[in-house]
Amino acid sequence: GAGEIGKEPESENILAEFKTTNVLSFSAREKSIFIHGKLADQDAVVILEKTPITEDSLAELFSDSRLKLDMRNDIYSTYRLQAPPQLNEIKTTVVCPATEKHVKKYQRQETFLVEETGEDYQSITLPYIQKQSLSIQWVYNILEKKAEAERIVYEDLDPDVGFVLLPDFKWDQKQVDNLYLIAITHQRGIRSLRDLTSEHLPLLHNIFQKGKAAILQRYSLPSSKLRVYLHYQPSYYHLHVHFTKLGYEAPGCGVERAHLLADVIQNLQSDPEYYRTRTLYFPLRADDELLSKFKEAGRL
Amino acid sequence: GAGEIGKEPESENILAEFKTTNVLSFSAREKSIFIHGKLADQDAVVILEKTPITEDSLAELFSDSRLKLDMRNDIYSTYRLQAPPQLNEIKTTVVCPATEKHVKKYQRQETFLVEETGEDYQSITLPYIQKQSLSIQWVYNILEKKAEAERIVYEDLDPDVGFVLLPDFKWDQKQVDNLYLIAITHQRGIRSLRDLTSEHLPLLHNIFQKGKAAILQRYSLPSSKLRVYLHYQPSYYHLHVHFTKLGYEAPGCGVERAHLLADVIQNLQSDPEYYRTRTLYFPLRADDELLSKFKEAGRL
Repeated sequence: GAGEIGKEPESENILAEFKTTNVLSFSAREKSIFIHGKLADQDAVVILEKTPITEDSLAELFSDSRLKLDMRNDIYSTYRLQAPPQLNEIKTTVVCPATEKHVKKYQRQETFLVEETGEDYQSITLPYIQKQSLSIQWVYNILEKKAEAERIVYEDLDPDVGFVLLPDFKWDQKQVDNLYLIAITHQRGIRSLRDLTSEHLPLLHNIFQKGKAAILQRYSLPSSKLRVYLHYQPSYYHLHVHFTKLGYEAPGCGVERAHLLADVIQNLQSDPEYYRTRTLYFPLRADDELLSKFKEAGRL
Repeated sequence: GAGEIGKEPESENILAEFKTTNVLSFSAREKSIFIHGKLADQDAVVILEKTPITEDSLAELFSDSRLKLDMRNDIYSTYRLQAPPQLNEIKTTVVCPATEKHVKKYQRQETFLVEETGEDYQSITLPYIQKQSLSIQWVYNILEKKAEAERIVYEDLDPDVGFVLLPDFKWDQKQVDNLYLIAITHQRGIRSLRDLTSEHLPLLHNIFQKGKAAILQRYSLPSSKLRVYLHYQPSYYHLHVHFTKLGYEAPGCGVERAHLLADVIQNLQSDPEYYRTRTLYFPLRADDELLSKFKEAGRL
C-alpha cells in the first residue's frame, strides 16, 4: 500500500501536475522553500528541503559525480558537482488539501522591532495579555503531573523557589548538540521579565544553580557550555527559563529577544525595579495582535 | 583553458581520487560539510554545500524528478525527491595544497562561555589586549580614506562623536534581506564596551540616530527593521557598532555576544560605570589565547 514505510515504493510523480501559485517562504541558508499551489484543483502546500550531506555517502559522491569547473585561482578552485540523484535527495512534504490556516502558517512573516517603555507595558501590553487570557492550563498540567510527568528531568518542589525542568519540544533528545530544556516555576502569577523585582532573586538563583547542576548530572554538560535566558515577549505568560547548548543557534536566542539570566540577576541586584521601569525591545511578527495594539497607540 | 568562466568546461573528476582523512565540520542545518584529505599526495580541504532551491527551477524540478514515498498520514505525506543532477548541484570548493592553517580554520571549534568580572577584565583581559597589540592599521586606513573610501555609505567627520558607516565584508550588498553595516568611530582609544562610561553617551546617541537615518535614506529600511548592537568581546579593539536587518540571523547576534546599543545607552544613563563594574559573559573558541589566560587564572 501507499502508506508502507521502508519498501521504497516508486510513487507516481504527483508533483508533475502541481501548479505553483506563489512561494510562501524561502531559506537560502537552509536550502528550503515553501510553496503554495494547486494539486488537481485542491489547495496544497509543498515543502522542499535539501538533505544534509552525510559522511558515509562521501566516497560514492566523490567517485560517481560529474564536476563542472567554475573558477580557479591559486590554490583555490570551485566547481558545481552533479551527483547521482539517489545520493542527493530533496525531502518533500505535501500538505493536501491545505487550509487557509496552513498557508498562513508557512507564509513568511515580516518582523518589527517594538520599543516598549514601562508606561507602554501598563497601557498597551498588560491589558492585551489580560484580555487574551490565553489558557496556560497545559503549564499547570505539567506542574501538577497531569501531563508529561515522564519527561521531567529534574524537579524542585518548593512552592516559592521550586521549578520543573523538562526538554523543550523542539529538542529530539537524540544528541546533546542541540540541547534545549525549559525550567517552569511552581510559583504562579509571574507573567514575564516585566514582573520580576529583587524579591524574586532567590527564585532566579535557585533555577540558575539547580538547573545547571541537573544538566551537568544528566547530560555531562558544564555551565560553560550553556546559554541560560528568558524571552521577552515570552510565548506564554508563566515564568520560564530556557537552557540551550552554547554554539547551537536555537530559535529565539538572538539579542533582540533573549535576556541572559545572569544579567537579569545582576540588574535586579543593582536596581530592584530594573525590569519595571526599563524600555525593552522585542520583535513581533506582522500578524501579531500585540503589534496592532502598538500601532493603534501610535507607538510604531 | 581550465580557468575560463561561463563556458561550462567538463572537468575531469579530480575528486574521484580524493581520500578523506577526517570531517572537519558539518552543518545539518546549512547542508554543508568541510573535509580534510589527500589529493594526489597533497593535503587538501574540500567544502561541499548544497545550493539554495530557486523559484525559477521549480517547474522543471516538479516535472522531471522521481518521487519515493516515505510516509502518508491524513492530509500530510512525505517523499524523497530525486532530481535531475543539473537542477540540484552541490557547490564544491577545493583548497589544494592546503596548509595546516587552512585545516585549522575549517576545523569545528568548541566554544566556552567565559564569566568576566570587572576585576578579571583588569587583571586578565586588558593585559592580554595590550600585549597582543593586534594591528588596527586597517581601521585607521578606512578612517583616513587610505582604503575602502568608495565603500563608505555615510560619514560624520566630527572627531569626538563622528563615525564612518560602511558595509561589512560578510554582506554582498545584493539584497537588503541580509543587510550588514558597521559604524566605526573616529574617536580613537575606546577599545570596547568595557571602556564606555556616561561621557560617551553623545557619541553613542549620534551613531544610533545618524546611522539609522543613513540606512533609511540609502536602503529604505526603517529602524523597526534593524538590530543595532555591539559585540563583547569584539573582533578588534576599536569601538564599532553593528547594524543588521532584523530577521536575518547574522553570525554573532546571539544574546551571549551581542549588546543592543539601546540597552547600552539606557544602562549608562542610569549607571555611568555600568560596563566597568558589571560581570560580562561571552563565548570564546577553544583555541582562543584569551581562553587559556582565563584557564591559567583558574577562572574556567
